[in-house]
Amino acid sequence: MKVLIIGGAGMVGRKLAERLAKDGALAGKAISKLTLYDVVPGVVPEGAQAPVAILTGDLPAAGEADKLLADRPDVIFHLAAIVSGEAEQDFDKGYRINMDGTRSLLEAVRKAGHKPRLVFASSIAVFGAPFPDAIGDEFFNTPLTSYGTQKNICELLITDYSRKGFVDGIGIRLPTVCVRPGKPNKAASGFFSNIMREPLAGADAVLPVSESVMHWHASPRAAVGFMQHAASLDLAKLGWRRAITMPGLAVTVGEQIAALRKVAGDRVVARIRRVPDPFVETIVAGWPRNFAPKRAIALGFKADASFEEIIRIHIEDELGGKIA
Amino acid sequence: MKVLIIGGAGMVGRKLAERLAKDGALAGKAISKLTLYDVVPGVVPEGAQAPVAILTGDLPAAGEADKLLADRPDVIFHLAAIVSGEAEQDFDKGYRINMDGTRSLLEAVRKAGHKPRLVFASSIAVFGAPFPDAIGDEFFNTPLTSYGTQKNICELLITDYSRKGFVDGIGIRLPTVCVRPGKPNKAASGFFSNIMREPLAGADAVLPVSESVMHWHASPRAAVGFMQHAASLDLAKLGWRRAITMPGLAVTVGEQIAALRKVAGDRVVARIRRVPDPFVETIVAGWPRNFAPKRAIALGFKADASFEEIIRIHIEDELGGKIA
Repeated sequence: MKVLIIGGAGMVGRKLAERLAKDGALAGKAISKLTLYDVVPGVVPEGAQAPVAILTGDLPAAGEADKLLADRPDVIFHLAAIVSGEAEQDFDKGYRINMDGTRSLLEAVRKAGHKPRLVFASSIAVFGAPFPDAIGDEFFNTPLTSYGTQKNICELLITDYSRKGFVDGIGIRLPTVCVRPGKPNKAASGFFSNIMREPLAGADAVLPVSESVMHWHASPRAAVGFMQHAASLDLAKLGWRRAITMPGLAVTVGEQIAALRKVAGDRVVARIRRVPDPFVETIVAGWPRNFAPKRAIALGFKADASFEEIIRIHIEDELGGKIA
Repeated sequence: MKVLIIGGAGMVGRKLAERLAKDGALAGKAISKLTLYDVVPGVVPEGAQAPVAILTGDLPAAGEADKLLADRPDVIFHLAAIVSGEAEQDFDKGYRINMDGTRSLLEAVRKAGHKPRLVFASSIAVFGAPFPDAIGDEFFNTPLTSYGTQKNICELLITDYSRKGFVDGIGIRLPTVCVRPGKPNKAASGFFSNIMREPLAGADAVLPVSESVMHWHASPRAAVGFMQHAASLDLAKLGWRRAITMPGLAVTVGEQIAALRKVAGDRVVARIRRVPDPFVETIVAGWPRNFAPKRAIALGFKADASFEEIIRIHIEDELGGKIA
């Protein structure tokens, strides 16, 4: 089985590549080739059990998607996107990459004619406030960002191309990935990870909102699990409702900190500094906090068991088991 | 005020043009110019109170939308579309006209920079079965046709372009327009109008489904009223939930026939011939039947009072008050 990861150099793409390269298999079949495509070169995972090809390019450019389809990949993971903040600042770039790029991919898939599985990383940004307490599977999509609009449009296109028999696609709406590895970033959502990752690594981190703020999380490992499961599922079970909210954990910042205390102790928690930022507080107030993702759970998608588990996964996967 | 109707030669476009030309005003302002644009030439309404320009062209063609924006219309009605059946049969044409055409229009509006009002004719085809008994304003969009997908994408684009301040747009989801004037057409929904219009004109009509089939209707006059109201409303009231289901009448075919009997008598009803068509019955079973359009009602959109009224409107507007 040939597997293509578009966005293979990004955080989730890299984790997924590592998992697949280590397993050497997906959906019960041996992987004969794993292609990582992105705007910057991806990294061949250590000890890969399958040949890995690294490609770079600009997905929406003419002919580019056709090149990716030339070897007729059986499973395509499409994770590439301009992130929310940038899509908001650069309207044309966001539509070009996030919408035209996906459409170009779908057209190339249609032309190739072999109906591969397509797993599309969508987002809870397809929802817009005001929300019910827990957003159900039939709640409507009213995105409040260009990024959310573009993700929503891609979900619709993927469903229609699937219904027409051009692709066998699914859009999975990922929770915020936490604990996000790497350096602190300036995304408004960055602090959810920063206040866990930095203290565990011996550094201080700033908490800009109150402890009562609730958010919707999945570990990188859970996110990779969603991808694998989405590639393995019989999608006929979904009918033509091919966009689906993934399960996650709805926890408050206070619960995150309590979990950190249990796992790593007061010494680590003491590295969190409270510096209220009304601007961030306002942005975060417009985000979804909690979901009732019954369909995904019934289909076998699995969230992390607890926020403590999310922290332990980070310590195991990123810190070699050691807390600073 | 300059008004542009894209799709000005279509059934609703023509009715809207007649209304605006007769009123000579929209949203309390005198119309200084009314432009009717379509793929075929529209008709200058008799006794027009404002200058009418007739233009033809291909909306998604390069530079075409820019031409339409050259005189900076204050209100744009966008009613042009490839219909459901054709969009299903010709995938590329449907996306080109229904999606790319609208995007091209939005880009031209953005470039023009004067933020006109845009009223987009959307459709209840954005919804897909299975449905609740009455589809509420927060029910999700899972279209089951390419046409519905394209309308949904346009709704999303119009909302995002509005949020960014490029246009002041609204998407209104029209019920099935009934009684549709003109000749019987072969659309699967055609019989809802055929069984009223043909008997009233002295001809037989075929009813292919059972009398228990329920559907969602608005008269052409009500549809034009929705357009005028959408052009006049303060859209800030809608927030960024700019796609809205219009009110209508949910009636069964049996209720349609009973209304026809009341208005026109047994002699006219006797012209309906029952010829069950399981194919049509199956298609119709997948359509929305009933809605709870609370937002639209709260915003002042008005449905017809009864199906009898719908029939009387047809007799008045299309038959010069005379039943055959």
